[in-house]
Amino acid sequence: MREYNVAILGATGAVGTRLIQQLEQSTIPVKSVKFLASSRSAGKELAFKGEPVVVEEATPDSFEGVDLVLASAGGAVSKRLLPEAVKRGAVCVDNTSAFRMDPEVPLVVPEVNEDALERHHGIIANPNCSTIQMVVALEPIRKAFGLKQVIVSTYQATSGAGQQAWNEMNEQAQQHLNGEKMTSTIYPVKGGEKHYPLAFNLLPQIDVFEDGGYTHEEWKMIHETKKIMLDDMDAKDIKVTATCVRVPVGIGHGETVYFEVKDEKNASREKIQRLLTKAPGVVLQDDPEKQLYPQPIYAEGKRDTFVGRVRADEENPGNYHMWVVSDNLLKGAAWNTVQIAEKLVEKRLVGETKR
Amino acid sequence: MREYNVAILGATGAVGTRLIQQLEQSTIPVKSVKFLASSRSAGKELAFKGEPVVVEEATPDSFEGVDLVLASAGGAVSKRLLPEAVKRGAVCVDNTSAFRMDPEVPLVVPEVNEDALERHHGIIANPNCSTIQMVVALEPIRKAFGLKQVIVSTYQATSGAGQQAWNEMNEQAQQHLNGEKMTSTIYPVKGGEKHYPLAFNLLPQIDVFEDGGYTHEEWKMIHETKKIMLDDMDAKDIKVTATCVRVPVGIGHGETVYFEVKDEKNASREKIQRLLTKAPGVVLQDDPEKQLYPQPIYAEGKRDTFVGRVRADEENPGNYHMWVVSDNLLKGAAWNTVQIAEKLVEKRLVGETKR
Repeated sequence: MREYNVAILGATGAVGTRLIQQLEQSTIPVKSVKFLASSRSAGKELAFKGEPVVVEEATPDSFEGVDLVLASAGGAVSKRLLPEAVKRGAVCVDNTSAFRMDPEVPLVVPEVNEDALERHHGIIANPNCSTIQMVVALEPIRKAFGLKQVIVSTYQATSGAGQQAWNEMNEQAQQHLNGEKMTSTIYPVKGGEKHYPLAFNLLPQIDVFEDGGYTHEEWKMIHETKKIMLDDMDAKDIKVTATCVRVPVGIGHGETVYFEVKDEKNASREKIQRLLTKAPGVVLQDDPEKQLYPQPIYAEGKRDTFVGRVRADEENPGNYHMWVVSDNLLKGAAWNTVQIAEKLVEKRLVGETKR
Repeated sequence: MREYNVAILGATGAVGTRLIQQLEQSTIPVKSVKFLASSRSAGKELAFKGEPVVVEEATPDSFEGVDLVLASAGGAVSKRLLPEAVKRGAVCVDNTSAFRMDPEVPLVVPEVNEDALERHHGIIANPNCSTIQMVVALEPIRKAFGLKQVIVSTYQATSGAGQQAWNEMNEQAQQHLNGEKMTSTIYPVKGGEKHYPLAFNLLPQIDVFEDGGYTHEEWKMIHETKKIMLDDMDAKDIKVTATCVRVPVGIGHGETVYFEVKDEKNASREKIQRLLTKAPGVVLQDDPEKQLYPQPIYAEGKRDTFVGRVRADEENPGNYHMWVVSDNLLKGAAWNTVQIAEKLVEKRLVGETKR
């Protein structure tokens, strides 16, 4: 059996530690691991399957002999180092936004467009967290009934903004509970001009603003969804629009997804619910009588995307609501990245062509 | 100048204390006040304009000589006692859901359908908190361009569930920050079968479930919006649909409101923004460059409805997004109630006919 030398770039962050854990639990036969990070974190000791691994500073030469790179160290780091890794024969799965919209780079959610992996040139991009869980829930519906339009409002957890931002929200919460004024140095955008508290508040800004008043996070949801679903030509005319809001939750994004199907005659609430019980990566939690619906605190630590509150808009035939929750650090980041790597290995798309 | 004997029913609750404060600050000439509550709270001392007022147990005879009742003691109490108050010549503004859908009872948001007050038979209903702020923001747009459809997702603060629920969320937050398990005895519905924590979580259930998978809160947003806007016959075909989610915020509901105008040719993002700067009860906070947008912590304690993030859905002509925030205990409850009372006094609709 072929075994793989795997490097994790950005091993010490909130996603990095989960990349290690997901790789430990994966079906990928690992020959060796390298944990790479900035010089600041070099020398730190982590573990892989119980064995100590010392974090090394990431340089182009770090990738010599590496077959597979899982990257989550920020867009600038990926832009600088992943082409170096590819030059040295590695295949890279990148969790940053650096290459997502590059037409040469497949943007993959295995439940939706696994086949796009075949077209890779060394780099495969992992979509934005809020996009992934939405397309996992929509894909079985799109396949069965087609999709005309999607209108999504997100309720995004703070861990998506990184460990520091997460710590800051917890500090703010404690300040507020102590009757003190909340202090803020990170939200809504690290390095931005203004900072607002997130604890016991709502921030309708994730990432910077673009033209037309949309934030970059909203832009990502719109354009990444289209890129992922456009791999199927039937999906070429899906309209997508979004509002992204940061909420004071640690882990687990929520989304109200309102969608219109093409085949309104054949679709129904019950049929959509039934589809979702069989859909890969989806767990349907939808029983109003038992007060069963997805909640972030119960999605934490799980790889699945949870869907509930499926309802027809009774005044608009063909239009439905659903409520989608997933662990933004797992399916939204680390798990989807490792899942892509598993598929690359299964399909013999790692290190077979370049060597 | 005519002066009024005013009774506040449910004076000791989260809304009740704000009813007292809003009445103190109102233009209503108050001759006397009575604070009424259950026998449990009777004897408690509160204040009105610095003078002590002892809370009395509410009975039918409490309303003898009362001109104006402001009620927020729960639907069952309103159902039992307000007809008794009306019998004794009082006009009642009711903040509970008891009479909202009664065709004989005007359901009023002064910025939208003040004229409906003229048709009262002693009781005027104050709409649900999440409905009020939405219609205040939508009305200037409806007047200018007409409205075809509204799709709203709410981010509702815990204070809407009452003081006890609010305290419980704060206790849960402290438990979580201490690394303890969160305990829950109230959310999502007091007296319900299952209870879940709200702190650092999202609960896509507000109030009980109805047919079709909608919650009663969602039902209220749909049907109350129609009743309020239907006072204008041009509005008779507005479609409304909603998803209501409770979020771990103390005060201030957020709403993503997606709407389609009738006059798509004449509407534009800029025109809608301009309308909102002049609209009664609305403060436009919409400047992406300055990171200016509505947030619950800054809406707290204010009577206005704050609107921002106005954007066109570029793929769907005539469709727009906005983000609406208001203090759910003020415009959503106590202020709208007192504002209705001010209008009744202005229009000489209190105690003029029945005496």
